[in-house]
Amino acid sequence: ADRGRLLIQCADQPGIVSAISSFLTEHGANILTLDQFSTAEENGKFFQRTEFHLPGLPAVLGELERSFAAEVAERFDMTFTLTESTKVKRVAIMVSKTDHCVLDLLWRNRRGELDMNVAMIVSNHADLAEEIRPFGVPFFHVPASRDNRAEAEARILDLLRGNVDLVVLARYMQILTPNFLASVGVPLINIHHSFLPAFIGAGPYQKAKERGVKLIGATAHYVTADLDEGPIIEQDVVRVDHRHATADLVQLGADVERAVLSRAVRWHLEDRVARHGNTTIVFGSIGS
Amino acid sequence: ADRGRLLIQCADQPGIVSAISSFLTEHGANILTLDQFSTAEENGKFFQRTEFHLPGLPAVLGELERSFAAEVAERFDMTFTLTESTKVKRVAIMVSKTDHCVLDLLWRNRRGELDMNVAMIVSNHADLAEEIRPFGVPFFHVPASRDNRAEAEARILDLLRGNVDLVVLARYMQILTPNFLASVGVPLINIHHSFLPAFIGAGPYQKAKERGVKLIGATAHYVTADLDEGPIIEQDVVRVDHRHATADLVQLGADVERAVLSRAVRWHLEDRVARHGNTTIVFGSIGS
Amino acid sequence: ADRGRLLIQCADQPGIVSAISSFLTEHGANILTLDQFSTAEENGKFFQRTEFHLPGLPAVLGELERSFAAEVAERFDMTFTLTESTKVKRVAIMVSKTDHCVLDLLWRNRRGELDMNVAMIVSNHADLAEEIRPFGVPFFHVPASRDNRAEAEARILDLLRGNVDLVVLARYMQILTPNFLASVGVPLINIHHSFLPAFIGAGPYQKAKERGVKLIGATAHYVTADLDEGPIIEQDVVRVDHRHATADLVQLGADVERAVLSRAVRWHLEDRVARHGNTTIVFGSIGS
Amino acid sequence: ADRGRLLIQCADQPGIVSAISSFLTEHGANILTLDQFSTAEENGKFFQRTEFHLPGLPAVLGELERSFAAEVAERFDMTFTLTESTKVKRVAIMVSKTDHCVLDLLWRNRRGELDMNVAMIVSNHADLAEEIRPFGVPFFHVPASRDNRAEAEARILDLLRGNVDLVVLARYMQILTPNFLASVGVPLINIHHSFLPAFIGAGPYQKAKERGVKLIGATAHYVTADLDEGPIIEQDVVRVDHRHATADLVQLGADVERAVLSRAVRWHLEDRVARHGNTTIVFGSIGS
Repeated sequence: ADRGRLLIQCADQPGIVSAISSFLTEHGANILTLDQFSTAEENGKFFQRTEFHLPGLPAVLGELERSFAAEVAERFDMTFTLTESTKVKRVAIMVSKTDHCVLDLLWRNRRGELDMNVAMIVSNHADLAEEIRPFGVPFFHVPASRDNRAEAEARILDLLRGNVDLVVLARYMQILTPNFLASVGVPLINIHHSFLPAFIGAGPYQKAKERGVKLIGATAHYVTADLDEGPIIEQDVVRVDHRHATADLVQLGADVERAVLSRAVRWHLEDRVARHGNTTIVFGSIGS
Repeated sequence: ADRGRLLIQCADQPGIVSAISSFLTEHGANILTLDQFSTAEENGKFFQRTEFHLPGLPAVLGELERSFAAEVAERFDMTFTLTESTKVKRVAIMVSKTDHCVLDLLWRNRRGELDMNVAMIVSNHADLAEEIRPFGVPFFHVPASRDNRAEAEARILDLLRGNVDLVVLARYMQILTPNFLASVGVPLINIHHSFLPAFIGAGPYQKAKERGVKLIGATAHYVTADLDEGPIIEQDVVRVDHRHATADLVQLGADVERAVLSRAVRWHLEDRVARHGNTTIVFGSIGS
Repeated sequence: ADRGRLLIQCADQPGIVSAISSFLTEHGANILTLDQFSTAEENGKFFQRTEFHLPGLPAVLGELERSFAAEVAERFDMTFTLTESTKVKRVAIMVSKTDHCVLDLLWRNRRGELDMNVAMIVSNHADLAEEIRPFGVPFFHVPASRDNRAEAEARILDLLRGNVDLVVLARYMQILTPNFLASVGVPLINIHHSFLPAFIGAGPYQKAKERGVKLIGATAHYVTADLDEGPIIEQDVVRVDHRHATADLVQLGADVERAVLSRAVRWHLEDRVARHGNTTIVFGSIGS
Repeated sequence: ADRGRLLIQCADQPGIVSAISSFLTEHGANILTLDQFSTAEENGKFFQRTEFHLPGLPAVLGELERSFAAEVAERFDMTFTLTESTKVKRVAIMVSKTDHCVLDLLWRNRRGELDMNVAMIVSNHADLAEEIRPFGVPFFHVPASRDNRAEAEARILDLLRGNVDLVVLARYMQILTPNFLASVGVPLINIHHSFLPAFIGAGPYQKAKERGVKLIGATAHYVTADLDEGPIIEQDVVRVDHRHATADLVQLGADVERAVLSRAVRWHLEDRVARHGNTTIVFGSIGS
């Protein structure tokens, strides 16, 4: 409970690291890890993630935040967030019919590998309800299709509103409208079943088979209005050859999908992912 | 010298494996390895690569070829090639200014890893002449650019004609015209510095940096009239992150390029690569 | 149901491939895949795995077996097994307290990726009973420790006898006695949580941390009387660095363990694994 | 030339990051990257590597060093080194008969990937002299064997003394005595052709073949008096199977060896590697 995270970004300039570390030290904090990145030596944008230990943090968090704003952030024209590391994020997982990604997330959560509070599973199909029941997470079946999209999205927004800090699309096969994305108010992470930017859109394994690639992959990315074009958090691949039918690619790819999505979600939960334009900075990830 | 390779393809149907293996056994050959592949259980296309040992093969190769045509190939409407495994292919390597791919090929050839006869290096720049000289291979400088393309290609065709069995484009940065490809009369293998079909065309590392991918790769493929669209022989990737500038991607990618190209060339030299439409079948490759 | 598998081994000699393929063709079978391997060009041992399609196979299997023995096997002094591919193997999974390996096997079985009949889970602890219940597989709690080993093993043998074709040790942390191994009568596959032969025995992740290795791994192997010395079926690794505490290695390693064990079990179920001394030949595995 | 590196280690305690960054900022330096690591949250040992930009660094380096010692290092009981990043290390490469490791180092050096000054190649055989000549590096042939070890080592020490900052054993197949190691006065990096601690000592590929492993590897480590037991800097592996003869393992392994050694050498040259007991901390390596 006495562990905090400070994330900042600002124009790169001399003295930032010193100012932040001196501020924390003077306020009684011990820096545990400090990662920083500048996008360029000249006129770069600067990002820093700092984890620290400060006895009694919960009681002084608000005051620390005000002091940092006044003493450091203003001077460097910084945006920042200061949080307790132990505050667990609330997560909704959206899924259609395939189970491998959602099961891997729930199982890692149960094991203590993914520190999140799974508030709900939302699915446009009822198929996975029974598989998910043993995990003790609410399962909401919201039928969605091309025909009732507006209505379905409204229902989903009702479920999510105020209840979650992150939405994970764990092979949710419906398109989400720009309107939904604008309204949801929290980040969304999607798993795409190809090595982006290869094979954007539907049927990537079929396309991979047709093109005769020798590796297939998966990509976890933040969702933006442009389909499969959002900032990439993590990717991985597996070797295939001519003997693999499309069904084999689907099966092998499932293992890559669940691994990639779980890593991306963990890094997000640990506040390791900063967005820079359409790319990401992933700080100090030790799990890939 | 007594080792041969038989490659066949035909419509899939019962009895092919038996017919081929019986033919070889009856003619005194001992089958060393046999790899086969059918593209589908129904109406598939069948491919087989067989290596065998037959004492005195060079003396009887022509006769064996005629017998196989008459006794087996005709019956199954097969196309086939029958060669001595020890007959070394003659190779031209075309290159521009970067040395990593051509050096890796020459070095593996010198070490005995790549069993080929490098007949010549052709370059549109003189830069690499000195680096290549210690390998004792003829280096031909044929300046080529947008302005003199027809003339340059004619000179290159004069050099290649009748002298090579394979052309390897080891980071040759000039476009080759459909006319050149139609005239050259031997297969061409190209190394593209991205994980195709991602980042087709020029500047793939710059595009990869801009897209923020977490892996970069390289692709070796046969050259067809469609740029970067030919049948893929081999691909591989390496992990990168936000800290890698484009120049770092170029440097890391070079290692992947040379490894991927060397594997593809070796598999081609060993007659392991069959083409099926715009894809490849790579038989029994043990080197990746 | 009309698909069969023929596995043979014998001293290498000319004519084997031809004899087998002719036999199958003459008996009306269509060869689907054929993989063979010889351990040496001179005086080698020869192994072959053949999958074929034969309409009405179940009705003629016994007769086919007798014919093969008489017409082919005797001539080459071959040992062989001839089975229906669709005959599902019965498997017992033994486990202690960690769930990742057993869950991955059960998930893949439920999804149709691992074609086996899980006859029972046997555990020396009750901890995992509830997690396993949703899969509908019998769970037998057989407390075992240094003190009651003989009694516990007798109870386990009672459960297994006549009921299973394979035993999978999915992180079963008790030692099995040579007496048990001699009595069980079916193969056992174990997952060891290191890259063998590195870190044999207990506590491999702790040892890996102390040695400062940069990769950790897992090994699936057949169980023999020598601890961690049996024939290796599959291995894999994951990159680590100085920042990983032993607990991180345990967590990262779990993903490698479950992947490696699942692949090894699948290859065994598909009769792809032949044993040669203390090593394995894995035929045509397309899933790694 | 205005870029510097500060490496420190001391007992972990609050205020270190702040003290260092404030010192640098106050002396006019701009911090470019800062990596730190503590071995434990309680009573840990703390390591930090800082790269900074300071206009006119060469002129003030000595003064900066004295100030840092007085103002920071003493207070925290720190050991530290402060260097110009652009000061190129002088390297001797020792080699026997195989060329792949030494050539890869020389190629990368010529391409500008490895920023070192190769002062000399020392070999106990004359075989590679001609291959190395085109690189313009002195080649010293010092025959060494069991019989003349003391004399050979004395000659090598004469060559090295005062001339090099690092010795790289790029497949040097002679044992170096504790006396040599005590006298050489600079770090040595060795490449061992196995995934340590598996297959310590001679003939690792043969041992790997006999054990039937499914991956082979290589390890770069600092040399200590205990053979193959020094702190590991980098390791990697490549997949193999039953079809690979020992000679194939040697060939495939060579690619892993050269890649692993080149990475380890680069990280050392960039002062990224700190030693902690018998393990290493590798800071911010972006090239694997």
